[in-house]
Amino acid sequence: MAAHQTITVNLGDRSYPIIVGGGLLDGGFDLSAYVRGADCLIVSDAVVAPLYRDRILPNLDGKVISVIELSDGESHKTVAAMQAVLDQLVDAGANRDTTVIALGGGVVGDIAGFAAACYMRGVAFIQIPTTLLAQVDSSVGGKTGVNHPQGKNLIGAFHQPQAVMIDTDTLLTLPDRELKAGLAEVIKYGAICDIEFFAWLEDNMQALLDRDHEALAHVIIWSCKTKAEIVAEDEREAGRRALLNFGHTFGHAIEACQGYGEYLHGEAVAVGMLMAAELSGIDAADTARLRTLLQRAGLPTDPPAIEAHRWRSAMDMDKKVLQKRLRFVLLRSLGDAYVTESYDVGRLRKLIGEGVP
Amino acid sequence: MAAHQTITVNLGDRSYPIIVGGGLLDGGFDLSAYVRGADCLIVSDAVVAPLYRDRILPNLDGKVISVIELSDGESHKTVAAMQAVLDQLVDAGANRDTTVIALGGGVVGDIAGFAAACYMRGVAFIQIPTTLLAQVDSSVGGKTGVNHPQGKNLIGAFHQPQAVMIDTDTLLTLPDRELKAGLAEVIKYGAICDIEFFAWLEDNMQALLDRDHEALAHVIIWSCKTKAEIVAEDEREAGRRALLNFGHTFGHAIEACQGYGEYLHGEAVAVGMLMAAELSGIDAADTARLRTLLQRAGLPTDPPAIEAHRWRSAMDMDKKVLQKRLRFVLLRSLGDAYVTESYDVGRLRKLIGEGVP
Repeated sequence: MAAHQTITVNLGDRSYPIIVGGGLLDGGFDLSAYVRGADCLIVSDAVVAPLYRDRILPNLDGKVISVIELSDGESHKTVAAMQAVLDQLVDAGANRDTTVIALGGGVVGDIAGFAAACYMRGVAFIQIPTTLLAQVDSSVGGKTGVNHPQGKNLIGAFHQPQAVMIDTDTLLTLPDRELKAGLAEVIKYGAICDIEFFAWLEDNMQALLDRDHEALAHVIIWSCKTKAEIVAEDEREAGRRALLNFGHTFGHAIEACQGYGEYLHGEAVAVGMLMAAELSGIDAADTARLRTLLQRAGLPTDPPAIEAHRWRSAMDMDKKVLQKRLRFVLLRSLGDAYVTESYDVGRLRKLIGEGVP
Repeated sequence: MAAHQTITVNLGDRSYPIIVGGGLLDGGFDLSAYVRGADCLIVSDAVVAPLYRDRILPNLDGKVISVIELSDGESHKTVAAMQAVLDQLVDAGANRDTTVIALGGGVVGDIAGFAAACYMRGVAFIQIPTTLLAQVDSSVGGKTGVNHPQGKNLIGAFHQPQAVMIDTDTLLTLPDRELKAGLAEVIKYGAICDIEFFAWLEDNMQALLDRDHEALAHVIIWSCKTKAEIVAEDEREAGRRALLNFGHTFGHAIEACQGYGEYLHGEAVAVGMLMAAELSGIDAADTARLRTLLQRAGLPTDPPAIEAHRWRSAMDMDKKVLQKRLRFVLLRSLGDAYVTESYDVGRLRKLIGEGVP
């Protein structure tokens, strides 16, 4: 067995481990212990499946009854894709004890998890995230779902996995653009609650971009620990978990307005975090520091040209809209975020290019 | 306020009341207290909405932002129908604090509840069941979902309502066939766990068919109490709740093979209960007693002509299939059911007309 570390997401009888290490897909970890029942079914996509499916099968001890390949990309995160997974679960004869394994990036995990949540009113699933973004964020915490033409992740379920297995070796073949998009969510953890981690990222950004194994393992473990702690405290996002949406109100609007897939999620969040920092009215030095780190990570920081009314309607449909008031995650200072419905209206108008009414 | 009784479904912080009485839709109960947030949205169907929508609106204190009318009938309990509800939730500007109100029979409740479970990963909903079947069974317990061409309720979620409001006056206009279908589920409670209730039904069947208010209120309250107790003990159907599926393995197969809607759910369950009683090998006198009561309720008791291989494939896809073994709810005697994977194979073959292999 290869060396690995385990982080636990504490949710009572729904607690589960996040296993992080190198070589896990190649027999470095016995995943079959987490497969409930006799069968499992792998959901992946056309890019990831050819890379890993044959390497993972021996880990699963003959339990795999089917491998489903989805189309790659956020634009395919639809009800139709989720329904296709359900159809294939039926065709494969999946039953209540079948375990769904999501092998891929955030899109695969979100669709597969939502299908697992709905098939026979909920079957077990396991996350094997293969992108940095999925490893540090979307695979942990049980948020699953698909997009609606009117808004991102509007349709979904909270459904916690049985386990999350993160093989850091998958990052060696990850396209550069995907690696950078994942770094946006890593930077987010520093920006919202951990200025020391933020400073560590400033010191080690080049090592991360060079795919230094130690540096990547460090940010994955640190990010998962932070997320696990927040999720354990507030599984259903009644309070503190909303901090994880820093940059996401603007980011989701960018994704929706530009068409899903034009911006990678992490890229849209990078722009959104900077807009949120500007809306916060924090020290210009803090905003500059955030901008610099995002730029060093190769991420966009300037908003695309979107008309003000399109910003508005996209933000209105954002799922963080509560009782028709817009809520934002803002910063008191870098490393210290809060959720609020009270923000500087003039600054928001300026950010989205809205004239005086 | 009209007289009403309240039964509580005890599920910790997800506990909720079942309110039973006459005149509740006409201002007899202040439902708006159970509407979380500022808005609610009513999901109903083309038959029920014209009867009750204008009567219920004053109960809801101007909070209704939209009324959605589904097509009536089990054949419309599809992913497409659920998606149509989601689209209309989006169009109406529903947010995380919007409450979905299901006003109608079991199909409306199942679709609306599932849409509520998935919209923004779960919004509140309230059940106002208007058929006997929905009042005594499907509106209580949080099972929501839609059918898949390959099997009934294959796609869904556990999502408990905030409240169930049962106005017994709705039964005065319920078509005869629907009333009788509801009685099948009432008889089921007696058959699985309460021989005294079964005997009471034998003594009062005519009063129920005559729609005697006292008799109907009695069976609704008794049925809801039984179901609430079982659900509180085993919300996710890991054990005892499976007893409620008595007759349903055969019943679901009948519905699937005959095309959803050909048999009402309660009618298929009536036939299925008798088949299960016969598979159980209990005293012939007990089986005869069950058959007689079902027939007195105007329910079918003989299985339709279905080829053996179609029985098999429909039963295989039934969601109670665990690890590829068929499970049945059988009777030790009338009033005493149990779940088992061990049954008389010869008897099953005979029941479904299967030859010796």
